[in-house]
Amino acid sequence: MEIVALAGGVGASKLLLGLTRVMDARALTIVVNTGDDIVLHGLHISPDLDIVTYTLAGAVNPKTGWGLRGDTFSALKILKRYAREDWFNLGDRDLATHIHRTATLRSGETLTEATDAIRRAWGVEARILPMSDAPVPTLIETEIGVLHFQEYLVKHRAALNVKKIIFDRADVARPAPGALEAMASAEGIVVCPSNPLISIGPILAVPGMREALRARRERVVAVCPIVGGKSLKGPSDKMMKELGHEVSALGVARMYRDFAGTMMVDSADAAQKGAIEALGMQVVVRPTVMGSEADKEKLARAVLGVLQKSALAGAAG
Amino acid sequence: MEIVALAGGVGASKLLLGLTRVMDARALTIVVNTGDDIVLHGLHISPDLDIVTYTLAGAVNPKTGWGLRGDTFSALKILKRYAREDWFNLGDRDLATHIHRTATLRSGETLTEATDAIRRAWGVEARILPMSDAPVPTLIETEIGVLHFQEYLVKHRAALNVKKIIFDRADVARPAPGALEAMASAEGIVVCPSNPLISIGPILAVPGMREALRARRERVVAVCPIVGGKSLKGPSDKMMKELGHEVSALGVARMYRDFAGTMMVDSADAAQKGAIEALGMQVVVRPTVMGSEADKEKLARAVLGVLQKSALAGAAG
Repeated sequence: MEIVALAGGVGASKLLLGLTRVMDARALTIVVNTGDDIVLHGLHISPDLDIVTYTLAGAVNPKTGWGLRGDTFSALKILKRYAREDWFNLGDRDLATHIHRTATLRSGETLTEATDAIRRAWGVEARILPMSDAPVPTLIETEIGVLHFQEYLVKHRAALNVKKIIFDRADVARPAPGALEAMASAEGIVVCPSNPLISIGPILAVPGMREALRARRERVVAVCPIVGGKSLKGPSDKMMKELGHEVSALGVARMYRDFAGTMMVDSADAAQKGAIEALGMQVVVRPTVMGSEADKEKLARAVLGVLQKSALAGAAG
Repeated sequence: MEIVALAGGVGASKLLLGLTRVMDARALTIVVNTGDDIVLHGLHISPDLDIVTYTLAGAVNPKTGWGLRGDTFSALKILKRYAREDWFNLGDRDLATHIHRTATLRSGETLTEATDAIRRAWGVEARILPMSDAPVPTLIETEIGVLHFQEYLVKHRAALNVKKIIFDRADVARPAPGALEAMASAEGIVVCPSNPLISIGPILAVPGMREALRARRERVVAVCPIVGGKSLKGPSDKMMKELGHEVSALGVARMYRDFAGTMMVDSADAAQKGAIEALGMQVVVRPTVMGSEADKEKLARAVLGVLQKSALAGAAG
């Protein structure tokens, strides 16, 4: 069963790890948000691509969900000595990935090619694609001006008010080669439990992506990242509120209704089932909080079960 | 007393450290070989500049004479995982210097500016200049083809026969801003005990450098890097032999006679005094092997003594 997953970083990676353990990982194509990408110290850093790759390689730092397990931060201290910005954590081993990616891009290869070489070097069997080979930086308009998303999130710890999210240059970006094809032919598409605004949002902003999902709406299941009115990870809830969205499973459903046939919501949000169904979506209620490895596999099986059912329905209909 | 020193890497740094301890370090301008510079993994690496800077900062790895004391090599292992060349050792802390230098150059600053910022960040009081802001890579013609000097030295451990040394693009390079001016106004110029062919040679190959030395010939003292017919460090002796030079203090003197008024040779080579004097050079015989910190200061004092004498002679004449 060929599956495509749309993913941000830490939250998505939990479900992705579960998926690779309960299905043939080689049948999984992951389209990853690169709106968070940033050039720091002349190095091209792709936080979400790295989180997904390191997680599936079993190499991610389990305490943070990003970076490499057991990494050291010696280089960063010297960069600080050179008065370089040090608000973005860069481990020594992790730096090698950024150095390699940057050198690969400078040699003329695409981000898609660089990403594929990196995941293979880590023995990751799932195919990992950036959303685009073109830079589509997510910019956040705040009371102190327009910031790169990483400045907003990491430097200012998401403490500023979000007035507007800008997917800069999205209009001229194209989906990474193979992404639309994978979505068109997949038996199921999973929208991972990532921030709808700044993880899934940038992917949807690349021309052709949202249309590709809409065309497969009955095969798309979205796992809700909001549980009990709060985001499990990161500033989704705060950002949704500031931008006038209802901070609930229903609020997410309203953003996804045009392209997701099914929403998977947490048992805590069972009461919203009817309201979401009224939007024309199927609703599956499951425990979605992934604390343990077993939780990840269990949720992955639940997602695959829904997709199998919709595939059967599609074959029957 | 304003002093200019021409320097390669490890050998030169010993004398330079001595000099900064026996004179006002702020009156010392060091012009450093950048023929060894190489771009690896997209990073601009300046081995001799870093050796000099780290040494004067007291931060150099005392076992090797290059790299940073106590550095780790975690990033390099990951670069190897990405199938990148790993024959050139790059420590994690050291990498930060290369990352910073590369980012600085890409932002439009010159190598002179980047070098100055780096030495200041390390609290080095002596002024450190690259020989040129332009790349002048030293290429070595061998039986297996033309190699970058670092490939010859590090990757092939200097085991190949040297047929020819090429200072690539030297003809279109200009001395770093301030280098010629410093040489013109210095009270003394020291040629450090570095490889005459591939440390001092590249500096001399930059148009204007050799002429600037010649103009101050009576104020130039060269410390001989060949002692008892062998190089103290590196492949100077092997390279000199392969290129038809006599491997001796006299052989070095023949290469330097046009611009160095004085040769300082080791006590082991006292017998060559007459032959070198016959070339029209003054000869000072001193112990030049710098094993201890005290040796470095002692040799530095001896060099300054010679330069003071020539300055007095100049003032008198």
